[in-house]
Amino acid sequence: MSDTRPIGILDSGLGGLTVAREVFRLMPHEKVLYLGDNAHAPYGHRSEKTIQKYSLQCVKYLIGHDIKMLIVACNTISSVALEQIEAAAKDIPIIGVVLPGARAAVLRTAEKKIGVIGTHATIRTCAYTRAIQSIGSDIRVFEKASPLFVPLVEEGLVDRDVTRSAAQHYLYELIDLGVDCMILGCSHYSLLMEVIQGTVGTRIQLLDSALWTAKEAQDILTALKLVTSSKNSGRDESRYLFTDNIDEVERRTLLFFGGRLSSVEYVNVNGGL
Amino acid sequence: MSDTRPIGILDSGLGGLTVAREVFRLMPHEKVLYLGDNAHAPYGHRSEKTIQKYSLQCVKYLIGHDIKMLIVACNTISSVALEQIEAAAKDIPIIGVVLPGARAAVLRTAEKKIGVIGTHATIRTCAYTRAIQSIGSDIRVFEKASPLFVPLVEEGLVDRDVTRSAAQHYLYELIDLGVDCMILGCSHYSLLMEVIQGTVGTRIQLLDSALWTAKEAQDILTALKLVTSSKNSGRDESRYLFTDNIDEVERRTLLFFGGRLSSVEYVNVNGGL
Repeated sequence: MSDTRPIGILDSGLGGLTVAREVFRLMPHEKVLYLGDNAHAPYGHRSEKTIQKYSLQCVKYLIGHDIKMLIVACNTISSVALEQIEAAAKDIPIIGVVLPGARAAVLRTAEKKIGVIGTHATIRTCAYTRAIQSIGSDIRVFEKASPLFVPLVEEGLVDRDVTRSAAQHYLYELIDLGVDCMILGCSHYSLLMEVIQGTVGTRIQLLDSALWTAKEAQDILTALKLVTSSKNSGRDESRYLFTDNIDEVERRTLLFFGGRLSSVEYVNVNGGL
Repeated sequence: MSDTRPIGILDSGLGGLTVAREVFRLMPHEKVLYLGDNAHAPYGHRSEKTIQKYSLQCVKYLIGHDIKMLIVACNTISSVALEQIEAAAKDIPIIGVVLPGARAAVLRTAEKKIGVIGTHATIRTCAYTRAIQSIGSDIRVFEKASPLFVPLVEEGLVDRDVTRSAAQHYLYELIDLGVDCMILGCSHYSLLMEVIQGTVGTRIQLLDSALWTAKEAQDILTALKLVTSSKNSGRDESRYLFTDNIDEVERRTLLFFGGRLSSVEYVNVNGGL
């Protein structure tokens, strides 16, 4: 059995490219159909209703383009709208980023104290706390919204005084609470790994969901016998769709993806607006 | 002659409340119909096409609600979409925030060197440079995108180390260029007045467009004989419409408005989405 259809990856903008990168690292022959809703980004401070509305429009668009699996690469969407997305896309497997990240953290914490940082919307749902405590109910979880990290990354300020100052502002509280493990609960944050590690010190392990999500995607495709038989480079055959401002996308790609995207296209996912 | 219809104020979110506040200070009997498109905020990093699309939807909504004048309180919309808005709203007077701010700066600069800070979209259009040089062609204008100031204000971080660090990051360059006057070309920035003044020193005058825009609105209403004859408090009779997350709005109002809003409502401006 083989399935040459692309893996769909949904994100509110560019952050999900960190997940696409890990997908290509683990499964170099799989191709991706990426959709970034940058006309509505960032999602992280919006209401649940609005996040659900925007992300369902995108999911319908991706499903209409014959994907074999959907990875919801955005922590905010995974926290707020995964159930609705699963209901809308009942025939294909769906993976969010929350559960893979939560599982990895549970395996690593010795003190049974895990910190989670993310956007307002992600933290407000307590999705990570629920996911972690469904595996280990005796684990204490401390969540902290750290919204400034998104625009800092978007502006390319990954190693500046202002970034270190923001890291101190958000993270000292989690250090004081004694966590030994911290989930970077937003795909942008992995680009701040060095500044964050420099701020919290080496006693706290940082966990980035991107790698664990790609691994789970690989496991599911294998189990369902949906792995491609193609020997071409999936990276070269992938398509990247955005709902706004393609010039901006191309300028920022290097940061999130570590290279150029093979094909960037503008799309209108909600017909007429 | 008297006209008791409200003044429409359009903004991408909450920043325009700083303009509403100045309107009530100058014209306490005028009432306002405020529309903040926070479902799509922030506008500042979007493409011109998308900013025009979102703002025209809002303008059509406001015009459909019988306003006597429209103040475009958002620098980004004023820079990118004012012509389109004037074409769409041909029967009522329109004021943006760019020209009033530019006029005030031209009156003040002795060195004929003006700095402008704003969002990416505002700075990209060079709207302030064009407005200033149409009045004084020998004035040099230095524009600098300072996008982090918006999320800092949105997070309520108006007087923190991270804010001072961002101010240094953006403003040292303008100080070195020798400007003697700086336009705060985004309605959020007036809330950072103290930190910005502390960073640039007292030799540089800061100009906030909100007051000058309200003054221009007053002059136009007077000239066109559209001033209300009502003696009621306009502030108490005003309505504030938002396209997303009213809870968030109510939490943040104090910062932008200095008090509670009389009536906050959710509206769907683009029918069905």
